[in-house]
Amino acid sequence: MGEVRELSLADVSSHNTETDCWIAVSSKVWNITKFLDLHPGGKAVILKYAGADATTAYEEIHVPGMLEENLSSDKFIGNLTPSAPSADVAPPSAVQEATKAQEAPPTAPQTQVTVTVRQPTELPALYSLIAAHDFEEVAQRHFTPKAWAFYSSAATDLVTHHANKSVLRRVMIRPRILRDVKEVSIKRKILGQDSAAPFFISPAAMARLAHKDGELALARGAAAEGIVQCISSNASYPLGSIVNAGVDGQTFFLQLYVNWDRPKTAELLKKAASLGIKGVFVTVDAPVPGKREADERVAAEAVASAISGAVASNDRKGGGMGRLMAGYVEKSLIWKDIQWIKEVSGLPVVLKGVQSAADTMLAVEYGAAGVMLSNHGGRSLDGAQPTILVLLELHRVCPEVFNQLEIYVDGGFERGSDILKALALGVMAVGLGRPYLYSLAFGSDGVEHLTQILKDELETSMRLCGITDIDQLHPGLLNTQDIDHLVTNEVDRHPWVKWKPKAKI
Amino acid sequence: MGEVRELSLADVSSHNTETDCWIAVSSKVWNITKFLDLHPGGKAVILKYAGADATTAYEEIHVPGMLEENLSSDKFIGNLTPSAPSADVAPPSAVQEATKAQEAPPTAPQTQVTVTVRQPTELPALYSLIAAHDFEEVAQRHFTPKAWAFYSSAATDLVTHHANKSVLRRVMIRPRILRDVKEVSIKRKILGQDSAAPFFISPAAMARLAHKDGELALARGAAAEGIVQCISSNASYPLGSIVNAGVDGQTFFLQLYVNWDRPKTAELLKKAASLGIKGVFVTVDAPVPGKREADERVAAEAVASAISGAVASNDRKGGGMGRLMAGYVEKSLIWKDIQWIKEVSGLPVVLKGVQSAADTMLAVEYGAAGVMLSNHGGRSLDGAQPTILVLLELHRVCPEVFNQLEIYVDGGFERGSDILKALALGVMAVGLGRPYLYSLAFGSDGVEHLTQILKDELETSMRLCGITDIDQLHPGLLNTQDIDHLVTNEVDRHPWVKWKPKAKI
Amino acid sequence: MGEVRELSLADVSSHNTETDCWIAVSSKVWNITKFLDLHPGGKAVILKYAGADATTAYEEIHVPGMLEENLSSDKFIGNLTPSAPSADVAPPSAVQEATKAQEAPPTAPQTQVTVTVRQPTELPALYSLIAAHDFEEVAQRHFTPKAWAFYSSAATDLVTHHANKSVLRRVMIRPRILRDVKEVSIKRKILGQDSAAPFFISPAAMARLAHKDGELALARGAAAEGIVQCISSNASYPLGSIVNAGVDGQTFFLQLYVNWDRPKTAELLKKAASLGIKGVFVTVDAPVPGKREADERVAAEAVASAISGAVASNDRKGGGMGRLMAGYVEKSLIWKDIQWIKEVSGLPVVLKGVQSAADTMLAVEYGAAGVMLSNHGGRSLDGAQPTILVLLELHRVCPEVFNQLEIYVDGGFERGSDILKALALGVMAVGLGRPYLYSLAFGSDGVEHLTQILKDELETSMRLCGITDIDQLHPGLLNTQDIDHLVTNEVDRHPWVKWKPKAKI
Amino acid sequence: MGEVRELSLADVSSHNTETDCWIAVSSKVWNITKFLDLHPGGKAVILKYAGADATTAYEEIHVPGMLEENLSSDKFIGNLTPSAPSADVAPPSAVQEATKAQEAPPTAPQTQVTVTVRQPTELPALYSLIAAHDFEEVAQRHFTPKAWAFYSSAATDLVTHHANKSVLRRVMIRPRILRDVKEVSIKRKILGQDSAAPFFISPAAMARLAHKDGELALARGAAAEGIVQCISSNASYPLGSIVNAGVDGQTFFLQLYVNWDRPKTAELLKKAASLGIKGVFVTVDAPVPGKREADERVAAEAVASAISGAVASNDRKGGGMGRLMAGYVEKSLIWKDIQWIKEVSGLPVVLKGVQSAADTMLAVEYGAAGVMLSNHGGRSLDGAQPTILVLLELHRVCPEVFNQLEIYVDGGFERGSDILKALALGVMAVGLGRPYLYSLAFGSDGVEHLTQILKDELETSMRLCGITDIDQLHPGLLNTQDIDHLVTNEVDRHPWVKWKPKAKI
Repeated sequence: MGEVRELSLADVSSHNTETDCWIAVSSKVWNITKFLDLHPGGKAVILKYAGADATTAYEEIHVPGMLEENLSSDKFIGNLTPSAPSADVAPPSAVQEATKAQEAPPTAPQTQVTVTVRQPTELPALYSLIAAHDFEEVAQRHFTPKAWAFYSSAATDLVTHHANKSVLRRVMIRPRILRDVKEVSIKRKILGQDSAAPFFISPAAMARLAHKDGELALARGAAAEGIVQCISSNASYPLGSIVNAGVDGQTFFLQLYVNWDRPKTAELLKKAASLGIKGVFVTVDAPVPGKREADERVAAEAVASAISGAVASNDRKGGGMGRLMAGYVEKSLIWKDIQWIKEVSGLPVVLKGVQSAADTMLAVEYGAAGVMLSNHGGRSLDGAQPTILVLLELHRVCPEVFNQLEIYVDGGFERGSDILKALALGVMAVGLGRPYLYSLAFGSDGVEHLTQILKDELETSMRLCGITDIDQLHPGLLNTQDIDHLVTNEVDRHPWVKWKPKAKI
Repeated sequence: MGEVRELSLADVSSHNTETDCWIAVSSKVWNITKFLDLHPGGKAVILKYAGADATTAYEEIHVPGMLEENLSSDKFIGNLTPSAPSADVAPPSAVQEATKAQEAPPTAPQTQVTVTVRQPTELPALYSLIAAHDFEEVAQRHFTPKAWAFYSSAATDLVTHHANKSVLRRVMIRPRILRDVKEVSIKRKILGQDSAAPFFISPAAMARLAHKDGELALARGAAAEGIVQCISSNASYPLGSIVNAGVDGQTFFLQLYVNWDRPKTAELLKKAASLGIKGVFVTVDAPVPGKREADERVAAEAVASAISGAVASNDRKGGGMGRLMAGYVEKSLIWKDIQWIKEVSGLPVVLKGVQSAADTMLAVEYGAAGVMLSNHGGRSLDGAQPTILVLLELHRVCPEVFNQLEIYVDGGFERGSDILKALALGVMAVGLGRPYLYSLAFGSDGVEHLTQILKDELETSMRLCGITDIDQLHPGLLNTQDIDHLVTNEVDRHPWVKWKPKAKI
Repeated sequence: MGEVRELSLADVSSHNTETDCWIAVSSKVWNITKFLDLHPGGKAVILKYAGADATTAYEEIHVPGMLEENLSSDKFIGNLTPSAPSADVAPPSAVQEATKAQEAPPTAPQTQVTVTVRQPTELPALYSLIAAHDFEEVAQRHFTPKAWAFYSSAATDLVTHHANKSVLRRVMIRPRILRDVKEVSIKRKILGQDSAAPFFISPAAMARLAHKDGELALARGAAAEGIVQCISSNASYPLGSIVNAGVDGQTFFLQLYVNWDRPKTAELLKKAASLGIKGVFVTVDAPVPGKREADERVAAEAVASAISGAVASNDRKGGGMGRLMAGYVEKSLIWKDIQWIKEVSGLPVVLKGVQSAADTMLAVEYGAAGVMLSNHGGRSLDGAQPTILVLLELHRVCPEVFNQLEIYVDGGFERGSDILKALALGVMAVGLGRPYLYSLAFGSDGVEHLTQILKDELETSMRLCGITDIDQLHPGLLNTQDIDHLVTNEVDRHPWVKWKPKAKI
Repeated sequence: MGEVRELSLADVSSHNTETDCWIAVSSKVWNITKFLDLHPGGKAVILKYAGADATTAYEEIHVPGMLEENLSSDKFIGNLTPSAPSADVAPPSAVQEATKAQEAPPTAPQTQVTVTVRQPTELPALYSLIAAHDFEEVAQRHFTPKAWAFYSSAATDLVTHHANKSVLRRVMIRPRILRDVKEVSIKRKILGQDSAAPFFISPAAMARLAHKDGELALARGAAAEGIVQCISSNASYPLGSIVNAGVDGQTFFLQLYVNWDRPKTAELLKKAASLGIKGVFVTVDAPVPGKREADERVAAEAVASAISGAVASNDRKGGGMGRLMAGYVEKSLIWKDIQWIKEVSGLPVVLKGVQSAADTMLAVEYGAAGVMLSNHGGRSLDGAQPTILVLLELHRVCPEVFNQLEIYVDGGFERGSDILKALALGVMAVGLGRPYLYSLAFGSDGVEHLTQILKDELETSMRLCGITDIDQLHPGLLNTQDIDHLVTNEVDRHPWVKWKPKAKI
């Protein structure tokens, strides 16, 4: 191994071309010339820092250790001698990023980026938050504009996004009285795994935008509360790190975007299985990303996923992170690929984003262990039916599926009583995505506190319904008559429009 | 008896521990060491004043005379010698409390609390109020923030709270013409008792937050107008005081939260019977309190009920009075307990909080004299059906119950025409809770004035319908078609979702 | 006859008691001692001016000449000698009154009231108003607060007032194309009388609050445009003056509140017949006035009707003009009285305020020439069905009535297309009340301009429907499906609630 | 020809009467005495500039070259010698006009109008606009008040205008999953002509109000994107200029208002055919213009169409351009005229403005090649059904028409998913009018950018539906249950109102 070479920034600065490219990160200097073409985010973004100290920019985008993982040791040139007081290069918190988003991006690779940290508004005391939407308000104030836009946005006119919640709220509850409700149980098995509650953390990309610990904090909170975390393919942290952040025997699922470069997906699935992950949620409602205009309008710093390698950065149209990260997603994924995913992973497969009875029946046919009724929180196709209507459509068209696979649902669920309604209609568990991202404003403490609120609301709602176990919840406790007329009972055809198109699918 | 001992505050101050605890209240010194563990509100709250003059704090929480009632005379130590000009310790009015809510709570037991009374906005002339919601506006401006939050709040997202009123307003009236409507009668018998009107004062807790005379003012107003008052278990004043505040032969009902310590409830019921109370309204929709977030968010001074002993004070989560006062409520109350209440009290029992046809039929079976269709003003389970829908559900599912017991209803009724609609659908009498609490801004004058407004509105509505006696009101005067599709005609099952849960209840 | 006596204000001032009461009006002094008890508005209001010059107050309330009509000539004492520059006592315009409403009322009878005229905002150019609601906006800015409150207010929560318009707007039109629509005709016979348009001026009280010429201006405008004016019983001007303000052969109807003092009504009916009035619209939806809270809240100067003698002034509750003027209205008017009105007047009788199919059938039975489907513009019973629903109810329940009498409608009609919808459903003519009152801001010019706008809108709507004569309008041009479910098809019973009250009507 | 005479403004100024009228335009002086009576906009508007330099006013109204086209060369008097620095008389852009609309019109013909150009807000970068409604916002800020009022206004209360969009948005989509959607095709044949997309530019009048290049810019943008432009009869530019602005073989349609002076229409049709225009869209929903009040309220400079010659200028009522331009439109156009248009033009005829199944069936009978379901963007008869309901009405009443002619639709379509819904219901192509006018804020670049956005949205929506060719779109992909109850299934009669009018049509 020999002596480690010591270099000044001046030594590094001459290696600033595409054919001879060094960069310094965290006082280590690397030769990345050969890596340029392999960078998932493209070489242009790296070349901005060719011959320079890229520590700050690197840490904003990547979690620590990724460079060592991706480069062989012979690319290590030596240590950088500190030459001047450098900027604060601590991993940026959500609050710090709030500042940077308003600054100009680095204009020349030779320039060390200086970050001026704005004094942020202090977070409120965690115990003063008493409902899921309190976390949303905190997130709106404390997240960077870009993180807020990315998380909160939905497709085009937000019709489906709002309908998810408003149509769900039109389902009424018929409480029963005078039953002993001293003790209640909300435990449930999800995909065969124990869960302390009938809800779980839905996958959502790039949690590090919300908190420096990102998905690690979600894992720690889930561990403390005994609930399941479904990890996004586009997580900020590596899969192993997330799994290791929790406790032994903790249940994780992996959300999967299939890569058009299939071997990469195979590799990921094998890794997931080896890490003890218990199920794969394949996203099927986003062969292309929806058009999330709020996201498109806010310029962004580049960020990268440590799992999929997807990188989102500015393009000419603004900075639609959802769009930019979707570059690797396979647009040709078809039904028979489900079998391949099952075989490669050896895990049960749930289809996330099913929006019709017809596809639920196909899911049974193709061997899915479950379906997640979802419209991607209104982020995919605006105008799609709210998920509560799809759930009722299953009851109208194919009630047998409730015995053939597990049904999950997400989209607009924020209250214990929302969850109660889904369970009373046969849902195995409800996913919550945005609320958990928002809870990350407080790190894992927020995740725990939100979970406690939801558990408490669900238990209270059950007691007020005269129910002591979630297995007792039944449709007779609901009055759905305000939305019954919106539920179709047809498979793949219109109830009365008989016109037929020229082409068959 | 001998000489009454004279003590200085210094004499008292050394008895400031849990094992030797004196306090001074209204110039009398008591040894309350043994009482500490019996205090319904817990001993911590008393210990804050150990060895000190607790007059101000005591009078904010308790009505006069409670100490003498609860302590034997041997606990009386002597009189406190006035040592310095003390603060104004007159019983605080709602207006005075408005000030205190914004001040710091007493931080040490040795410190005498000084109350600075803010000059409040003057109340408007009573005659300028011409509708129930005028009282609401006055209350919002003149009550303490806490009192306002406690009274006006409802569960979580206020869906049911708003639906109570908005769905009721969608019922249309079909007036008839050219009938002699010179004389009209609105008298009715309620649980066999004469009432000058087909509506009554619904029970609501802690009326002293609204006016120093609290439930006493309600009793005086009810007496003047010949209507019935249903007294809350969590009233600020003792039951006897309330009954005595009225006139001979005045009709009262008692609302009951059953205590998990059943003998306490038995004692209360016997006292009620001995006081000539005519019926018991058992609350059945709140085995646990609903989650009233506006209430939770406003910190409160401690207050105590003189009937149930329930005490509400701040806890770490804020100051949810509804939640805090519910600590003693029996979560295991079941149908067969109705018989026990009837037997112990010897009084007819009405179930307050029935929300389904199924439970109304059970009420008949278990011998209830009546049911009150109520969702606790939207304060219990948010998402529950508005009460007008439950009323219509009875007509669809079990119309025979209208001949088997008396049907009452509350929730969102504010107008004479609202009351008329319920009566035309077979309701015996309508309860009004919040409006009467708000009317207390003017003491018993407000109660009388509100009652006169409601009577006048009901009589006017009847005349404009071509009706001269409330017994003539019939469903043909209504057009309910805007809400008919919301009414279920099923008992304990869903009209078309056939899925069944694993567990039976 | 002899010399007319000349008196100074000092001569008058000593006759200032209830038993010796003189007043001066327009330089004439009268002894009104005996008249005090006959004053329809009560004697108190007169006594305020006992022994004083009451000219200003008198002219605000009464139209000129009423004193001479009501007092015999022996009550005339003499002429008042001008003693000092008096205040401007010109008949107050709406604009002038806007000022006075904000001043203190006269406090002593000896004090001459001085009117300070505020410089009002100038009226916009009449041609700049292009729609009925433009007149409403002008009225809101230029009328006195009291006039605005009186005209624009409706009962309690305005549910029916708003529903009139919003439900009507939910009726959709199905235009037809490619027809020759060069010439269109909108002429119609109403109660057998020629009208240039299928709409007329609905009766509304006290038009002098809007313009000094009040109903005279309405008559002149109606004459110019060839439409019918229905004169209110509570008109500001005498019936004869109104009829004479128009042209020879002009058609008027009289709206009638029957007086509990029936001979007075008989006298009025005979006078109407002798004046050539062509029909009587008996108001049947207001045996007592509705509760118009905006009206109640605004204090008013006293005003009197020159026809009914009704006077509205402040009382302790505020100044509800609708309520105050209704004192003389017979609350015991019944079906058989229709015959009496027909006989006394010799005129066809239309019932104004019919709100059900049941009463329309009774109207046929009792010989009415027509019914006006009306809820008094939402001013009577709030919660009553919007009139378009009553119209559809007739089609469902008793379609034969369209051949048995004439059907009119009002309530929320503001557009030519609104009128078109009613005509397409068999209505003979549509009444417009408030819009015409608002148009009085411009006197008779406003009445003409509004009429021209409505005619033009109706003609344009017809052309765009492919229709050239209003007699061609048919229900097939409408799509009422958005409101069909709101229409009941029952007479005097509820479609499915079977509960029956104890008492029969 | 001889020497061209040179004249000073003084030479011109004496010819300023109706019988001797010269004007100078762009440094040329013309004798227009004989032309005064032939001016389509009336002579009054010209006489304002008699004896003066009318260059500025002329160029605001007319496109260059019209004077030379309309006047014989003997009317040319000579060249105007520049006498003083003149105002900037460059063809006014939309931004410049924004200023002038707020100035006083020229008050005397002898006065040269001076235009003060307000520094306009700069247009945003085109790429920052990412949705059709972004163009609307830009247009609202950057167009003249008059242009904005003219384009954005709709009839009376905007009920139909808003319903077009809101009812369309209530149609829900049922996406399918797991299909290969890598490649998608949105090509379609419209009236037999190739189009790169299933939508086209709907005709809209006077595009020069939006941009100096007006319809020329639309043509260039359509050429670049391969879509069809339907040219308005009231276009600002001559037909030939527009056609020539595009590329060889580009497809144009001509929208036609038939002139009461039929030979003029025959001439226009022959010219259209000779220019290679491929179809005629006859407007049938506007025999008279709707009442667009926002348009009426904004005063306007006069503008003229280079095709129809229609001129819109101020009248006493304001400046309703829609109304003023409609003066030449034939009110007696009837079904059999369709045949005449076909014969004269030799082109397929589409009826634009069909609003019922009944008229669609007549269109088949009378040989129309297509119908465009349209209510003129809500600008014709307010209250008319939204077009999506008419489309569904066809499916209910006469589904066979989808095989008999081509169905087009417009009104409220702004999104790719809106277009997808119409196509799934059998529509051949969707028209977009206002969005393209708004896009003209950026000239032809805006037209291209908007088209790209719409194509991209449509393709994305298709992929998210699991569809790869627009010919695969079928009604089973939609859930229309929220609006199904609004669809009538009757031809020319009401479903249940049986009343019949006296007159037959």
